[in-house]
Amino acid sequence: MVRESEIRAGEVAIDAPPPSDAGLVFIGRIHTPWTSRLMTPRQGRLDGPVCRIEIFEPWAPALRGIERYQRVEVLYWLHLSRRDLILQSPRNDGAVRGTFSLRTPVRPNPVGTSLVKLVGVEGANVMVQGLDCLDGTPLIDLKPDRCEFTPLAPPQPGDFEVKD
Amino acid sequence: MVRESEIRAGEVAIDAPPPSDAGLVFIGRIHTPWTSRLMTPRQGRLDGPVCRIEIFEPWAPALRGIERYQRVEVLYWLHLSRRDLILQSPRNDGAVRGTFSLRTPVRPNPVGTSLVKLVGVEGANVMVQGLDCLDGTPLIDLKPDRCEFTPLAPPQPGDFEVKD
Repeated sequence: MVRESEIRAGEVAIDAPPPSDAGLVFIGRIHTPWTSRLMTPRQGRLDGPVCRIEIFEPWAPALRGIERYQRVEVLYWLHLSRRDLILQSPRNDGAVRGTFSLRTPVRPNPVGTSLVKLVGVEGANVMVQGLDCLDGTPLIDLKPDRCEFTPLAPPQPGDFEVKD
Repeated sequence: MVRESEIRAGEVAIDAPPPSDAGLVFIGRIHTPWTSRLMTPRQGRLDGPVCRIEIFEPWAPALRGIERYQRVEVLYWLHLSRRDLILQSPRNDGAVRGTFSLRTPVRPNPVGTSLVKLVGVEGANVMVQGLDCLDGTPLIDLKPDRCEFTPLAPPQPGDFEVKD
């Protein structure tokens, strides 16, 4: 699926339990050049258009310190995606793959993740390159790229555990 | 905070709107060696203990094809975390940073992400190394690492757009 939410040959939908195990709050909105699912990139690129991540109140003060990082992980809610497909046919050719072996927006919990380049912070707005989502996509989270981030808190025993 | 959900000197909590903008369904459970927040690693390591990601029905068939990848992105729900801190003091020394400049589990939407090494798939269980979460953590999503994944679907115009 993906284009207009149709089911393609070979794809399998399930009757899933209601998504009521935990609740999300939209903490911002992402502004991109793409207003149609048929134009949006399959994958973001770090030399792509500059996009604006707007943080809503009361969360804007939580940006303090983000300018220390060059790469930021962005989590967003793929609000137009159906959630019930377990096998999907990305090429619409009858060949199917499991949802967890794809990065399609159609997932039981449609959370997108991107690793973006931080261009700048302007008040409650974070300018970035590397996104691949529709204009108006709800924001769920922002955090430093794991490769750049060193925990400030003291280590814990698990940090030193390796496979037996 | 993090240890036992206390608020530390300098930390700031907000009165946030209810988290009812979107709902999650727990699609599995993560089994790790760590049963206390005081033991759990701050960050996972790819040579760490093998952990088991159990997929619930009806989603197990969505694993088909995941064995093609060596690295998998795991999204999970940090179910014990408070969600109302915007400034946090990781060292408990009065110095604070914004939540979005930290990878702490305490976030408005406590979604953890890890990039793990795929060890094997056994029925509805995925064995991995590199996790850093508590035993019993609810699973939200699994997808191939973006670096290893090439979209199967045809490219879209946005894939070719670069900054002006």
